[in-house]
Amino acid sequence: MSEPLRLGVLGLGRAFMLMLPTLSQHPLCRLVAAADPRPEARAQFEADFSRPGAPARAYAEIEALCADPDVEALYIATPHQFHVEHVGLAARHGKHILVEKPMALSIADCQAMIAAARQAGVHLMVGHSHSFDTPYLHAAALIRSGRFGAVRMITALNYTDFLYRPRRPEELDTAQGGGVVFSQGAHQVDVARLIAGGRVESVRAVTGRWDPARPTEGAYQALLTFEGGASASLTYSGYGRYDSDEQFGWLGELGQQRDPDNYGAARRGLAKVATPEEEAALKNTRTYGVAKSSVAAAPVAHNHFGQVVISCERADLRPLADGVMVYADAERWLEPLPAPSVPRAEVVDEMHAAIRHGVAPLHTGEWGMATLEICLAILDSAERGREVRPQYQVAVG
Amino acid sequence: MSEPLRLGVLGLGRAFMLMLPTLSQHPLCRLVAAADPRPEARAQFEADFSRPGAPARAYAEIEALCADPDVEALYIATPHQFHVEHVGLAARHGKHILVEKPMALSIADCQAMIAAARQAGVHLMVGHSHSFDTPYLHAAALIRSGRFGAVRMITALNYTDFLYRPRRPEELDTAQGGGVVFSQGAHQVDVARLIAGGRVESVRAVTGRWDPARPTEGAYQALLTFEGGASASLTYSGYGRYDSDEQFGWLGELGQQRDPDNYGAARRGLAKVATPEEEAALKNTRTYGVAKSSVAAAPVAHNHFGQVVISCERADLRPLADGVMVYADAERWLEPLPAPSVPRAEVVDEMHAAIRHGVAPLHTGEWGMATLEICLAILDSAERGREVRPQYQVAVG
Repeated sequence: MSEPLRLGVLGLGRAFMLMLPTLSQHPLCRLVAAADPRPEARAQFEADFSRPGAPARAYAEIEALCADPDVEALYIATPHQFHVEHVGLAARHGKHILVEKPMALSIADCQAMIAAARQAGVHLMVGHSHSFDTPYLHAAALIRSGRFGAVRMITALNYTDFLYRPRRPEELDTAQGGGVVFSQGAHQVDVARLIAGGRVESVRAVTGRWDPARPTEGAYQALLTFEGGASASLTYSGYGRYDSDEQFGWLGELGQQRDPDNYGAARRGLAKVATPEEEAALKNTRTYGVAKSSVAAAPVAHNHFGQVVISCERADLRPLADGVMVYADAERWLEPLPAPSVPRAEVVDEMHAAIRHGVAPLHTGEWGMATLEICLAILDSAERGREVRPQYQVAVG
Repeated sequence: MSEPLRLGVLGLGRAFMLMLPTLSQHPLCRLVAAADPRPEARAQFEADFSRPGAPARAYAEIEALCADPDVEALYIATPHQFHVEHVGLAARHGKHILVEKPMALSIADCQAMIAAARQAGVHLMVGHSHSFDTPYLHAAALIRSGRFGAVRMITALNYTDFLYRPRRPEELDTAQGGGVVFSQGAHQVDVARLIAGGRVESVRAVTGRWDPARPTEGAYQALLTFEGGASASLTYSGYGRYDSDEQFGWLGELGQQRDPDNYGAARRGLAKVATPEEEAALKNTRTYGVAKSSVAAAPVAHNHFGQVVISCERADLRPLADGVMVYADAERWLEPLPAPSVPRAEVVDEMHAAIRHGVAPLHTGEWGMATLEICLAILDSAERGREVRPQYQVAVG
């Protein structure tokens, strides 16, 4: 029962690079196969993950990966707009599925993915999103304990350089899933839903498109209200100026120590490219099989998604990269959360518990759809200048 | 023309205590008279502000103060609910007026105050509010310069112990002007309006009443949209747990150095009182004529109202207690704002310029009414669970 999951990877791109330390180091996961159109990525995968008597397989064709009988579960890390097709294919082959966030770009696609998994009797999970991060899970557990009363108000803000990291052209086109609402809202909304219980009742939001050269959403603000009476104020800017990791002791999103003096690095890097093709090529230098296959040193802290302050009836909680600060009536303290030996281990933990032990996961397809619905509501509310009431919300399982 | 204003003070309570260092030290202001029902406050005022050959007058009756021919302008620092009556009286006696925030508790009262001042031909100003603070004025000037493009998004948050400071019973009753929306929202909304140009188009808000023993709003979150397209997300909690001055190098609202180790002091103080009467008595120990007449040492930094991040099209700005951090595309820098020799000098500066030199003030009655309208809209939106569209907004003059 504690046998590692035999995992196949669909898409050896940037998302995979971010999950690579987890998937390659977690004792309950073994990377056995992959599919990617790029020969250099396939060669790298075979070199990195073949074991004596057990060669890793790297396929050019997705269908071949899905048909691989040794693969139990697939991590689908292709671009957002292909998720629905690839999840359907994986499900038809009876594979359990972890699909990257955002789950898809429409509710209809999410519904199709959920139906495909249900029909095939496989688990469908959505992630990594930062609601897997131990500091948020620990805060949620503190709230569930009842010790501090109900959660009432959440403030989350994150200022990054997301929009100026090298992108493929479609990542700058909202209709194709580009922009910060799909990609980063999926994290922040997921964290807020985890903390506030899951069921959003109303969304009022504003989005920002301030750079004509990057014509998609680079920022948003949203006020959410939840069943049960909590509210959440979310602010995100990916415009690469103020960086809220400054308030986090320069511990980065991945739990890494950042260099406070490297101001404006993303913009500087981008200033060297002249065309969208050059930019996509620059992005490719950071992808698997090209960039150094960095099985990174152990992180110094947990993953996080910026500043989050949670107000309960009888305490405020602040999830940090190294613990959760509790501000109670008479005293405050840090509940320390030592740096993990495997980053994002929570993703494999949850998937393994679901597949091997039948433990219902939090990050189901229904959960992912509910988060996507809020991202779509943010875009819709901003576009129409009015409040949106979502319909597909689910509670924390 | 640079003759000091001869100022009378109506109400020698807590608000006056906070303005005392300003009004007593500013070279363009002279405290010549006051009115207060408490004999000990009157005796203190006469002792503090009488000069050779020019005794300071302290009246038990408000009307007597208003009739004092030597008084040019009145600072009205009585409880909110009396502002309309006292402004009317002052105006009828031809005195210029600085009335404390919130200006009043209803639009009708604000309109009556504006009409009274107009009819009498006197200046009506509202303050102190933190939109007078130099760091916000400097940020507004940077924006007006056009150098960084239009302002697009503001995030403001402030976590304090406001609700657990000693209060009179009516300060815990929203109908009488109690709670953080009237008292603290008036600051945060004023700052946001200053930065975003003044004219709010929509308000969606949630308020928190989490302590049955303090049955008024102790927290709120609001999303504002502005004419011109900017948005502002405001969060305030006065529940005395997490303290956002932690992010400000423990520089407090008044520009003072705070003690980071004095956690939970407000709640501890309040735990010693058993009844509302004892609590009001405790509040009175902090008022003029009882507390040491602390003409404080010069502040170490400017006043501020918590964390504010302003995103413009081409830079983020962060007003701090000691300057404005500018995060531009290629570099970031602090525009230093040395500690003032007189705290809140900006209030007297603006009033003196208006009365002596006819310079139109920013903080007019119309401005104060527009801010109050947003506070009322926050309460209304929270109560009805829907967006509110204000009608009395005015632009930065």
